[in-house]
Amino acid sequence: MARQQGYACYALSFRYGQRHSVELAAAEQLARVLGAVEHRTITIDLRAFGGSALTSDIAVPKGEGSASEAGAIPITYVPARNTVFLSFALAWAEVLAAQAIFIGVNALDYSGYPDCRPDYIAAYQQMANLATRAGVEGQPLTIETPLIDLTKAQIIQRGVALGVPYALTVSCYDPDPTGYPCGACDACRLRAKGFAEAGIADPRLG
Amino acid sequence: MARQQGYACYALSFRYGQRHSVELAAAEQLARVLGAVEHRTITIDLRAFGGSALTSDIAVPKGEGSASEAGAIPITYVPARNTVFLSFALAWAEVLAAQAIFIGVNALDYSGYPDCRPDYIAAYQQMANLATRAGVEGQPLTIETPLIDLTKAQIIQRGVALGVPYALTVSCYDPDPTGYPCGACDACRLRAKGFAEAGIADPRLG
Repeated sequence: MARQQGYACYALSFRYGQRHSVELAAAEQLARVLGAVEHRTITIDLRAFGGSALTSDIAVPKGEGSASEAGAIPITYVPARNTVFLSFALAWAEVLAAQAIFIGVNALDYSGYPDCRPDYIAAYQQMANLATRAGVEGQPLTIETPLIDLTKAQIIQRGVALGVPYALTVSCYDPDPTGYPCGACDACRLRAKGFAEAGIADPRLG
Repeated sequence: MARQQGYACYALSFRYGQRHSVELAAAEQLARVLGAVEHRTITIDLRAFGGSALTSDIAVPKGEGSASEAGAIPITYVPARNTVFLSFALAWAEVLAAQAIFIGVNALDYSGYPDCRPDYIAAYQQMANLATRAGVEGQPLTIETPLIDLTKAQIIQRGVALGVPYALTVSCYDPDPTGYPCGACDACRLRAKGFAEAGIADPRLG
């Protein structure tokens, strides 16, 4: 979506102690396929602080009734994760003199994650423009969240219209060693629901 | 100052690609001497993005007329550094259920650094309370900056009154291999001015 808007894209991924690196390999491949100018993977150790199923030994919840669908903050929430990610993006954005930072947060299905909400993003943008040389010198940047208000079905439809190779994408929190999705975690179930509602077969499962 | 206010302190330092590790050894020693419950040093690679004399091969400015005294943003400014530091502190604070994050920024002498200003800190606090579980659940944390409005002389005086062992502290951007301060960089000159105005001899130079 950023490419369609004419941006030259510098893609950023994080090795932050997540359980698997399948998503990092996929991010690198997708950045290349979709024409990013550059892709960097930064290693940070959020595992040092603990507190989440995604970075500790707490089990990933499977099946119906997981916390994220009940409105509470789910156990898979990583403390301050998006704040840490956006802060590294802000450092690179400042060096690049970038006009915008795009982040794929989605408020609708994941309303339990505090750092995916529009109010949070607005507050981050305001802080960012007080934090940086560009902001101080009158060239503010924006935090862009083109997916924030879309349903998963709408995201699938927009992606298909733009030619996104969904066969290369990874959503699963807990894939098998070959990278095949578990089919049972929150992320798998929301992805399956999105494809079903969009009336499209998921090429990842083909 | 946090200990005096009754806080149990968890101290956090960063190995972020700075030119020397003398300040990290000093931070560890000071945390122990001053009674921190725990001290952690997190390794992050801000060097990957470049853009500052503190983390790249650009020379550290020495002597009179350095940028930080002329009101402009100095070359020693590291892109989004305090934002990255505070974001890691926020992650740990959330795991600890901490009530406050203390940061020693000082707006007066270093007015050239955008991420040392009160407006920035206020915006960060607002963002932090929208980002986190605690903020969402009605237990907001505060970002405390007890040094922000003090002159260097006032900081020295407050520290001496509290028994801070200044002989163990490091300010220099560019010490010699033994850790002895260069005496010529911005940080050395501002420290010397602070001790002189406070009428106190710097025990680090003894």
